[in-house]
Amino acid sequence: MTDPQPDAAVAGLPRRGRPGYDRETLLAVCVDVFNRHGYEATSMGMLATHLGISKSAIYHHVQSKEAILGQALDDALGALEASIDAVQAGPGAPGEKVEAAVRGTLRVLVARMPEVTLLLRLRGNSDVELAAMERRRAITRRLGELVEAAQAEGTVRSDVTPRNLARLMLGMINSIVDWYRPNGAQPGHKSVEEMVEAVTGVVLGGLRG
Amino acid sequence: MTDPQPDAAVAGLPRRGRPGYDRETLLAVCVDVFNRHGYEATSMGMLATHLGISKSAIYHHVQSKEAILGQALDDALGALEASIDAVQAGPGAPGEKVEAAVRGTLRVLVARMPEVTLLLRLRGNSDVELAAMERRRAITRRLGELVEAAQAEGTVRSDVTPRNLARLMLGMINSIVDWYRPNGAQPGHKSVEEMVEAVTGVVLGGLRG
Repeated sequence: MTDPQPDAAVAGLPRRGRPGYDRETLLAVCVDVFNRHGYEATSMGMLATHLGISKSAIYHHVQSKEAILGQALDDALGALEASIDAVQAGPGAPGEKVEAAVRGTLRVLVARMPEVTLLLRLRGNSDVELAAMERRRAITRRLGELVEAAQAEGTVRSDVTPRNLARLMLGMINSIVDWYRPNGAQPGHKSVEEMVEAVTGVVLGGLRG
Repeated sequence: MTDPQPDAAVAGLPRRGRPGYDRETLLAVCVDVFNRHGYEATSMGMLATHLGISKSAIYHHVQSKEAILGQALDDALGALEASIDAVQAGPGAPGEKVEAAVRGTLRVLVARMPEVTLLLRLRGNSDVELAAMERRRAITRRLGELVEAAQAEGTVRSDVTPRNLARLMLGMINSIVDWYRPNGAQPGHKSVEEMVEAVTGVVLGGLRG
């Protein structure tokens, strides 16, 4: 177990003797701790240590560790679902919808990176996790349906099943949570929209075949 | 915590009152338990329960839980390194070497799926994990060097940095551990070489731009 480190989501906030958190900030710190140590390995006591408040003060905001997980997963899944809802309801030929889905998913991953990171690492150890994994699979199926329509249109390769193409696209897209940092200052750092353009170009290249 | 379930690596073995394991089978069962419950959340007691032997019987084979993790990660990383060694030492133009690296990595992922799955989920919570993550990054760098040579040759798109292309390729390639099962019997199941062909085609399409 590593020592508690300053929490990114807390740094920059005014510190009081006993910091009072709004629910959103408290959830953000907890998601960060889950991502660093693993959800299973994180206890309410560890969350209290990282937050610098008592366990009972955490229970003022949330019912349980699992409720925090459930809220974070719902935030991630809700944003991903809203993105594909907008693409499906919007205008455009099937190939254009696939492209819009790629861009939309990448933008959600940047905006909700900690919550999506948590989602991507689930193992299905509880009903909350299993329900989230099912919602994630439904999103993959919906992307597969967009891909299938684009295959019928002839704008996407047809030598791989729509479902497997959707899985491969999402593998490439989801990898950004492991290496892209929106506020990075390293040489050659790309802005969010530059990254979205670059990754979309590579994903679409793969689909064209 | 879910109840212990029959372990895939144990099912099919002749059961004795107290099963005697060879080291390889014991490690395989432990890796399977790590992947299902998470390494941090797995205790030696849980491993003993899944193996159906005592903790002291486990210590006959291995020094510690971390030694099991270290061995599994070394198996995965050794195989991945050997694959890229062979590509670098072998014949072929840079673009052909990139293609060979994609195929080779996919084959290692199938052959060493449980160990690679464990590797891909590391969070860096110990020196063993940090060392494995550094070896993983070195493999990504080496793939990036192959990509860079192919960019210079003009066979791979140059609008994305070699390192980021390597990361995106590996994101797509690594996703197979989440959905491809070598012995799957579902309709439309692909053999290993069919899957390798299909995924290589999509990855290379993305690289051509």
